[in-house]
Amino acid sequence: MSLLVTGTIGIDDIVTPTGHATQVLGGSCMYFSAAASFYGPVRLVAAVGEDFPPAFRDSLKAFPSVDTAGLETRKGSKTFRWGGKYHQNMNTRDTLFTELGVVGEHPPTVPALYADSGYVFLANGPPAVQNGFLEQAPKRKLSVADTMDLWINVARPDLQVLLRKVDGLVLNYDEAELFTGKPNSVSAGRAILEMGPRFVVIKKGEHGCLLVHRDGICALPAFPTETIVDPTGCGDTFAGGMMGSIAADKANTDPGSIASIRRALVHGTIIASFTIEAFSLDRLKTLARKEIDERYRQYATMVRID
Amino acid sequence: MSLLVTGTIGIDDIVTPTGHATQVLGGSCMYFSAAASFYGPVRLVAAVGEDFPPAFRDSLKAFPSVDTAGLETRKGSKTFRWGGKYHQNMNTRDTLFTELGVVGEHPPTVPALYADSGYVFLANGPPAVQNGFLEQAPKRKLSVADTMDLWINVARPDLQVLLRKVDGLVLNYDEAELFTGKPNSVSAGRAILEMGPRFVVIKKGEHGCLLVHRDGICALPAFPTETIVDPTGCGDTFAGGMMGSIAADKANTDPGSIASIRRALVHGTIIASFTIEAFSLDRLKTLARKEIDERYRQYATMVRID
Repeated sequence: MSLLVTGTIGIDDIVTPTGHATQVLGGSCMYFSAAASFYGPVRLVAAVGEDFPPAFRDSLKAFPSVDTAGLETRKGSKTFRWGGKYHQNMNTRDTLFTELGVVGEHPPTVPALYADSGYVFLANGPPAVQNGFLEQAPKRKLSVADTMDLWINVARPDLQVLLRKVDGLVLNYDEAELFTGKPNSVSAGRAILEMGPRFVVIKKGEHGCLLVHRDGICALPAFPTETIVDPTGCGDTFAGGMMGSIAADKANTDPGSIASIRRALVHGTIIASFTIEAFSLDRLKTLARKEIDERYRQYATMVRID
Repeated sequence: MSLLVTGTIGIDDIVTPTGHATQVLGGSCMYFSAAASFYGPVRLVAAVGEDFPPAFRDSLKAFPSVDTAGLETRKGSKTFRWGGKYHQNMNTRDTLFTELGVVGEHPPTVPALYADSGYVFLANGPPAVQNGFLEQAPKRKLSVADTMDLWINVARPDLQVLLRKVDGLVLNYDEAELFTGKPNSVSAGRAILEMGPRFVVIKKGEHGCLLVHRDGICALPAFPTETIVDPTGCGDTFAGGMMGSIAADKANTDPGSIASIRRALVHGTIIASFTIEAFSLDRLKTLARKEIDERYRQYATMVRID
């Protein structure tokens, strides 16, 4: 069954301690789609403005499994723009500017031909808008949402409505703590399960991730690397690898099983470890599936306990 | 071959967000020894003062594999005392007071009958003193040192001398960054390898640990738990489980191999996950080896990647 993702496509300005990139392709939906496309087709639903550069449209061709029938180019509107500057340790960043453009307008519509999507990922956005997208995928078998501190602070009731409908939630470590008031990620994950989803994935960046599930808990490390150029999009490509893996998992009779999600988390971890090696989508553009599989094997060997 | 540990035995006052413990048994050497004793005999070298409570001496009997022939009770001196208060997230703490007592005097002597020790762990202390202990174990097969920010700041040359003699170094994440100026733990670990040791273990508390070795890198998560009562001694029991496992590893023809150290790191992780469940050594006093083995199996299953 097909994988659908809703979210943003943007134009980013990124400053890191070692370099910078100006007006590069970004956005949660873009990163997610590029990552998920290594596993199978992915249906992208997002809006851009008239100013969306033709070169970026060409960039999308580097990921032929991304179906762009749901990419709306909105006349008279501007593409979402974001600028961020990373701190010395690359774990934290400041937002330099945000120009909402189309993201501040009405959401794009999910094309009717996408209504049969079996796997749905709602990249970060207003929970009410995520709810609206979900309703346009009535055949979904597994749905997962991302969120962020902004929505936890300003739209908690909408987020709680959403959590009663989705199978899973992915969010950052500090956001899980903010959301639940629990300073321990296992406790935070369990508190979120009480709100509805069957599983929660807490992303901890360089420290890996934690899955809290009704059937158990699984902590996994990140893939250790020294090649850290740009962390932008790592969380989104993590989710893309995870959902792509779940949707493509032939051995997976229960897509919500802890075994299936664990494999998926490793794929997310591996894809994120490539994403961070270059600015924007540059590393993913040249990435080959066999490189993913090779690093997956390295990872499995690294954590293999006799 | 026998395992020797040098370090402190102290009397601790501990305050956490959920409770407190006053005048309880602590110290790096005590925590290490208790943890290592689950794997085989451990020879403890430390000094206490005349004020060391008889009840604490009785507590040591809970760990019959700890050989206390090297425990010196120094007349006219006082036992090391430390007080600490943990912050809300339990990851960071403030030192409330330190009374050096015997730790501010000359170091204890390694008993002559310990000179044949094959495995040596130098718990945190002045690097010059650690160097002195090392010279008293001339038959050592594998030696590992711990250190801390204080010595990195005030005794870097001594620490560098020590690093040319030991096989391994264990230290905290932030200390590795402080020591090397590298904001990435893989890079920091590699920079420390350049100073001499064959391997470095970077402890990241709830985020697990990272092994940087001449033959490779291994990141492992912590054992996820909600039962966090007192993190004091977790790093020392991690090291105790690690060294105990290495010293007892029958399958281990090369005790410095990445496979052997990886198994040892899991044992360290598991012992630390028990230590944190109660104040002081309370959880370890009631711990059974079969509980360690059961949690080891749970951990191996958790990180098993198909």
